[in-house]
Amino acid sequence: MSAVHVPSPREKTRALVLDLIREAQSVSRVELADASGLAAATITNVVRGLIAEGVVHEAGRARSRGGTPRRLLELNAGSRFAVGVQIDWHTATIVILDLAGEVVARTSFAGSGPRGPQESLTELAGRIEAMLCSSGVPQDTVVGVGLATHGPQDRHSGVLLASNPSPGWKGFPIVTAFEEMLSLPVVLENDATAAVIGERGRLSNGQRTIGLVYMGSGIGGGVFVNGDAYRGASSNGTEIGHISLDINGELCGCGNRGCLEMLAGPHQVVKGAFAMPDLTERLGLVGGHDAIVKDFARLTRAAAEGDPVPRALVDASARYIGSAVVSLTNLFDLDEVVLAGTGFDHAGQIYLEAVSHALSSTSYARAHRTVHARLSSSPVFAVAIGAATMMLRRRVPSAEHS
Amino acid sequence: MSAVHVPSPREKTRALVLDLIREAQSVSRVELADASGLAAATITNVVRGLIAEGVVHEAGRARSRGGTPRRLLELNAGSRFAVGVQIDWHTATIVILDLAGEVVARTSFAGSGPRGPQESLTELAGRIEAMLCSSGVPQDTVVGVGLATHGPQDRHSGVLLASNPSPGWKGFPIVTAFEEMLSLPVVLENDATAAVIGERGRLSNGQRTIGLVYMGSGIGGGVFVNGDAYRGASSNGTEIGHISLDINGELCGCGNRGCLEMLAGPHQVVKGAFAMPDLTERLGLVGGHDAIVKDFARLTRAAAEGDPVPRALVDASARYIGSAVVSLTNLFDLDEVVLAGTGFDHAGQIYLEAVSHALSSTSYARAHRTVHARLSSSPVFAVAIGAATMMLRRRVPSAEHS
Repeated sequence: MSAVHVPSPREKTRALVLDLIREAQSVSRVELADASGLAAATITNVVRGLIAEGVVHEAGRARSRGGTPRRLLELNAGSRFAVGVQIDWHTATIVILDLAGEVVARTSFAGSGPRGPQESLTELAGRIEAMLCSSGVPQDTVVGVGLATHGPQDRHSGVLLASNPSPGWKGFPIVTAFEEMLSLPVVLENDATAAVIGERGRLSNGQRTIGLVYMGSGIGGGVFVNGDAYRGASSNGTEIGHISLDINGELCGCGNRGCLEMLAGPHQVVKGAFAMPDLTERLGLVGGHDAIVKDFARLTRAAAEGDPVPRALVDASARYIGSAVVSLTNLFDLDEVVLAGTGFDHAGQIYLEAVSHALSSTSYARAHRTVHARLSSSPVFAVAIGAATMMLRRRVPSAEHS
Repeated sequence: MSAVHVPSPREKTRALVLDLIREAQSVSRVELADASGLAAATITNVVRGLIAEGVVHEAGRARSRGGTPRRLLELNAGSRFAVGVQIDWHTATIVILDLAGEVVARTSFAGSGPRGPQESLTELAGRIEAMLCSSGVPQDTVVGVGLATHGPQDRHSGVLLASNPSPGWKGFPIVTAFEEMLSLPVVLENDATAAVIGERGRLSNGQRTIGLVYMGSGIGGGVFVNGDAYRGASSNGTEIGHISLDINGELCGCGNRGCLEMLAGPHQVVKGAFAMPDLTERLGLVGGHDAIVKDFARLTRAAAEGDPVPRALVDASARYIGSAVVSLTNLFDLDEVVLAGTGFDHAGQIYLEAVSHALSSTSYARAHRTVHARLSSSPVFAVAIGAATMMLRRRVPSAEHS
């Protein structure tokens, strides 16, 4: 199959109806017609199909307001499942979501490191199968796997365009290879874009414009607008980590100067700590590329607990992220900004306060509109949840593995 | 009428068919069905209506490739017209476009200055009526007026949200007032957004993602993506003039620090010149807010002619714009960047080279994708052309003044 599934109009209608039932939890056909703008006959047909496939059932009647009581529809949450996977050098996460979008199982473990895609994907496939088994999820109820990675991708051919996590991944057919290992459809997605799709999936109003900053070992971004992730020309946009906040700053690895990731990312914060030997000793920092996520976790935990020296390092990082979020808002005209990723796991509140302050004091449209910032409800699993949500929204209800 | 016309599905289909005929110049019904993805019967119906209304005619037959020769359709360019208006403190421009998108008449003159909206709109209405008359355009062939202004707008209620051009404009019902003066539908648009819609109208491939930097007395931006202008939450996005390029820079009037407009806009360049008294004398610069556009024109003309001192000032400005364009590209994943506005009228080539250099040396995805930069073919009238194009795409073919 192609790496990017283009849904037919019929599939889109079914996905929309399922989304509305999921959001409402319990809803009548008449309410579905109102909310979707679809004809009553279309709703009747779609719902009939969904009931026949076992993904929706009738659950009692709404109270009457004069006429015949309306029969209420609910999802069979356990009728379909989707898997979400995130993999980078440092960390890997897997989640299983049921049809209602609830997390059935989740796990996080060491990322690929220097290993190539064949070895890493084999490990991931083994873990997915074990999780499905131990969660009691039958293989034939799984609609597919959303696979989120960092950096430039060719989503249509299902390959990564950069040597990330390591050189062997560049150009490797990861989607095809993973599909063969799992006998399941796989869709490739950018990590931060997956996260913003997942955050949208948890909101009731699909018309909101949402920006997301994702911080793992690096910094990425995503925007959700007009009911879908912002894609641009090649689905490689919203690279907030590589906008310049200091045109005269140091050279970033990307070739630009003073990029957000270089100024504010975990590498920079940890580097700042290593300029203070007593601090690194006190916090037990390890140093080096492989320990970046753990060292950053130790630093941000200490900052959150009130240790003033790491707090100053985190404050500096948070100020840069606040400035970049203001640029993101001034450009994308957002309703809301979400912070997600392991980087926000311990000191998320510090980052959130800095971002909120920047938005309320320096965003261009602040006199006319308030832009709200919030932490992801699940910073560590936001990407994997989003990757699975993407599969639920695209591939449901048919569990056929085309 | 409402300030924002929401087209019906039928109107959208007609507008799409008209766009395709405009782009192809001469096209058969079969080719229209192919290009639009619409059913042959739908095309037949829509074309019948367009011919009956006199906006399309049959113009001979295509060469046969075996079957019956296909009848070719062409626009009646002179059957409908649209007016585009741009107004800010410093300049005002008006264009009349025919249905084919060609400029029938154009003019530019002094902007509103401190005058309020009633007085300025009355002047604009008088000029529009005189231009229509002297161009021989009958009032009943005019589909409407696109009105482009700078700064935050409430497009739905047709009012400006800021004291721009001057305090009296804030909250004034400019759309309703202008419609009453002209007895024509009026649609409000952001100046840079209008410009990018106009630039899109001149390309054959509607799927390209285009970014635009607009420099008048200030700096704004627009993005065209998925066949329409990027809107975000409130149609007040892509404010590229207020993204920070120097987080530790001077305070901008917007409350942010080191904004592009403050570092690179005409005010800053002219201010730089006034630090050199012999330069200001030599170029005959006037100084002051009201002369900013003229002074900047003198400076950029001298720079373009090779005068090294103004050239250095323009180079500094161009470097900032290059950096901001890279951020715009890294965030919106663009295919192309266009420079438009009076600010690029004289030294456009210098700015274009700086932007092209920044894109090819520092954009994040440069290893995978080339982003082309170009100057607008009509920098001074790009906004008014875009505002008129917007009306042509939305309100055609019906010339009914609802």
